[in-house]
Amino acid sequence: MAIAIASDHAAFAMKAEIADWLRSEGHEVLDLGPTTDARVDYPDYGYTLADAIADGRAERGIALCGSGIGISIAVNRHPAARCALVSDPYSAALSREHNDANVLALGARLTGIDMAKACIKSFLVGSFAGDRHTARVEKLSAPRFAKEPA
Amino acid sequence: MAIAIASDHAAFAMKAEIADWLRSEGHEVLDLGPTTDARVDYPDYGYTLADAIADGRAERGIALCGSGIGISIAVNRHPAARCALVSDPYSAALSREHNDANVLALGARLTGIDMAKACIKSFLVGSFAGDRHTARVEKLSAPRFAKEPA
Repeated sequence: MAIAIASDHAAFAMKAEIADWLRSEGHEVLDLGPTTDARVDYPDYGYTLADAIADGRAERGIALCGSGIGISIAVNRHPAARCALVSDPYSAALSREHNDANVLALGARLTGIDMAKACIKSFLVGSFAGDRHTARVEKLSAPRFAKEPA
Repeated sequence: MAIAIASDHAAFAMKAEIADWLRSEGHEVLDLGPTTDARVDYPDYGYTLADAIADGRAERGIALCGSGIGISIAVNRHPAARCALVSDPYSAALSREHNDANVLALGARLTGIDMAKACIKSFLVGSFAGDRHTARVEKLSAPRFAKEPA
């Protein structure tokens, strides 16, 4: 499975470790940066990751920042991305089952590396339950607001 | 402070309890539904909540569904909303400090009522740190993708 991964500086070391681990598990990993731990802005990397999901270069994405909050907001700006911010494997499984999540966000300063790997494992093996969840996920792909954002 | 609250059916009971509690704490609460626990689609309520933030009817929002994942994705489709899915008060505080989050998402089936209240307390008293975080938050308000979504 092609998996894109992106982070900010706070999660740079976790990104490297997770990318290596995913490759050792046989996945194709698309590392979208950053390439050093110099300060960057998480939205830039979140948008790049969403682009990779939207254009089909990756089937799944892993989005990392200090808390996971900032980058999860950025990724979810794109209607093709469904990014779940989690800190436990059960939530990661639910994100696949109910929300057909294609990106998992984790907070490198809040979730330890072994728990992060357990979340990712759960996310990658999970599958969408369809059924009553399908119409809801379709609505996530076509957001409708009272006044369309400029 | 005017606080909007919305949920799906799975979080209907938690919504009622949190709305009552917020009112008892002196907040103005804008309950955006649903009004019964009949099955609904979380994106509809997430979009309605984002609208209330975007048009200034509410300064803050509370978004609830079974896991918090689905409704947090929906709310974050709107560039005026910055929705943090959390399950602990420290993450809730960080969401204000670093991301200027204006909506807090919680999972009613995963986070107990007392922990949910502790998260909301932390979210409501928290303040944005500004400084290096400002440019990042501004980027969340103006998402840029390689190919603009249709």
